[in-house]
Amino acid sequence: MHYSAINLREKLARFSEHWSPRIVARINDYDIKLVKLQGDFVWHRHDGTEEVFIVLDGEMSIEFRDGNVDLKTDDMFVVKKGVEHKPFAKEECKVMLIESAGTINTGDAGGDLTADDNVWI
Amino acid sequence: MHYSAINLREKLARFSEHWSPRIVARINDYDIKLVKLQGDFVWHRHDGTEEVFIVLDGEMSIEFRDGNVDLKTDDMFVVKKGVEHKPFAKEECKVMLIESAGTINTGDAGGDLTADDNVWI
Repeated sequence: MHYSAINLREKLARFSEHWSPRIVARINDYDIKLVKLQGDFVWHRHDGTEEVFIVLDGEMSIEFRDGNVDLKTDDMFVVKKGVEHKPFAKEECKVMLIESAGTINTGDAGGDLTADDNVWI
Repeated sequence: MHYSAINLREKLARFSEHWSPRIVARINDYDIKLVKLQGDFVWHRHDGTEEVFIVLDGEMSIEFRDGNVDLKTDDMFVVKKGVEHKPFAKEECKVMLIESAGTINTGDAGGDLTADDNVWI
């Protein structure tokens, strides 16, 4: 039997919405998601999980209450559990997220940018 | 405060050994590792975790008892818990692994290719 790989570029080409993570794989109780960021997100935190950002294409920043980090293609950053953060991307940035299954994109903040946490692509 | 990103290409440039995973980040109790593959690995399985392969640069295959999967740059594949597999790369292939912290590269098989499961880079 010939199994098929998941191609990240092909998956990214399938959606255009910003701030709307799509699950590409689940390992045990963790999700690997793809998301396209553009503009300002909301301040929020995830009390239940750390969250990894890996930039696949583009540039983004994450603001913290005490500073910030700038990320470009092939950069990654781990946002620690409970740490307030606000992602930002001037132009569209394509990102892989790794986090506990069931993590809500807006964390504790809620609001209009809250996306379904269980959309596969 | 300006935080620093982890750059995957820069981390990959820091080591040359094959089949010797290096941890670049830990999220909760999961590790994100970089590894360079070349040649044949051993048949093994991980009874405690699923294991994600994401190809950053190159081509590799994973053999299973009932088939195989071919992976190239930007492809990923999840090897299910307990499933016997044997990675192979004709030429050097650079890979990101995501798996439970403490996962041993040779799983149940052991042998000469067994690497330390807790080497950071």
